[in-house]
Amino acid sequence: MGNNKEMATVSKATIGRLPAYHRYLKEKQAEGERTISSTAIAEDLHLNAVQVRKDLALISSVAGKPKLGFDVEDLIADIDRFLGYDNVSDAVLVGAGGLGSALVGYGGFKNYGLNIVAAFDSSPSLVGTTLHGVHVFDVGELTRLVRRLNVRIGILTVPKEAAQGAADALVSGGVRAIWNFAPVHLSLPANIAVKNEDMAASLAILSKRLAEILSNEK
Amino acid sequence: MGNNKEMATVSKATIGRLPAYHRYLKEKQAEGERTISSTAIAEDLHLNAVQVRKDLALISSVAGKPKLGFDVEDLIADIDRFLGYDNVSDAVLVGAGGLGSALVGYGGFKNYGLNIVAAFDSSPSLVGTTLHGVHVFDVGELTRLVRRLNVRIGILTVPKEAAQGAADALVSGGVRAIWNFAPVHLSLPANIAVKNEDMAASLAILSKRLAEILSNEK
Repeated sequence: MGNNKEMATVSKATIGRLPAYHRYLKEKQAEGERTISSTAIAEDLHLNAVQVRKDLALISSVAGKPKLGFDVEDLIADIDRFLGYDNVSDAVLVGAGGLGSALVGYGGFKNYGLNIVAAFDSSPSLVGTTLHGVHVFDVGELTRLVRRLNVRIGILTVPKEAAQGAADALVSGGVRAIWNFAPVHLSLPANIAVKNEDMAASLAILSKRLAEILSNEK
Repeated sequence: MGNNKEMATVSKATIGRLPAYHRYLKEKQAEGERTISSTAIAEDLHLNAVQVRKDLALISSVAGKPKLGFDVEDLIADIDRFLGYDNVSDAVLVGAGGLGSALVGYGGFKNYGLNIVAAFDSSPSLVGTTLHGVHVFDVGELTRLVRRLNVRIGILTVPKEAAQGAADALVSGGVRAIWNFAPVHLSLPANIAVKNEDMAASLAILSKRLAEILSNEK
């Protein structure tokens, strides 16, 4: 998944934009395009062209050629390599309810380097079932199975009351990165990576933008 | 939902942190706390104390008192007012599959000023059913019903192929803000607010942090 030098120089904002470039380039490739200019990418994705050029220069070994632009296939390979998409990681999911089921069913994560190998839940009605082909185990087995499967990534889609306990169980089993969908701040050792998906924060930003738009029209 | 002056001076980052403060203060209130210091908030939420003080000064009319800190109830009311939590907006959801169902079932959105009044889907097996008490209509009715219900917010949880069409139908009906969970860039008029939830971007950021942590340990 890249090296230290790359990570020290590439911002979170740039990393966040890479999957959109990747998706876009894959579409262009499917349409038969072999080269593409940063200007075209910027226009189609509604981004600033200077920013696109900076982003791509940071992760690509091949410079875009004047007039011709970037080789689409090379650029896809560069992003694959940079984001570790060529190197799929196993993950487990804790919480096999609606959101967990939606994430497993999404299926597209394998294209992004993530393979959900097992799910866990505390509900007797879910334990023993399968979720889009992924077996649901009892959450009591979490630490033991994570250790046995040697999994490094855990996805938390449990109610907030259960989140800290599940996170602790994941870490005890050897998980080093947690994707947290529970609306709660987890207390974890500093050497565990956490990405919180805060739906309330997203909604707050959207509501504020709406209020701004409506108030500008008054 | 606030006024222009507020929005011009409060950053997206600050707005994004407000729901976490709100959640935290509600917990403290439930535990019987009447005042709280910015230092305590910062510590518990693992934020910088200067940042917390700046955030709260921007949205709160009452300054924190030295020694005593902030009045918990007043601060909750300030955030409620600023984020429009005291002024619930109606929304419709398009795409009643796994993710859509999870969002409706989440239920907590009402606390955050969002009330999902209707859902839409194209699948005959879903149309006519209810999703956690919310009726699922045929997506062909989308524009007409959005206009009749006078709804301003649309949530898109459809497959990416269906996203642009659904967004256009929402806008035709009068929707002014779209919360987009489909992994696709929507082409929309400039006066429509959009918040994209890009799961692939989140995953890319988490994977990079994990790689960094693991590589630092070598």
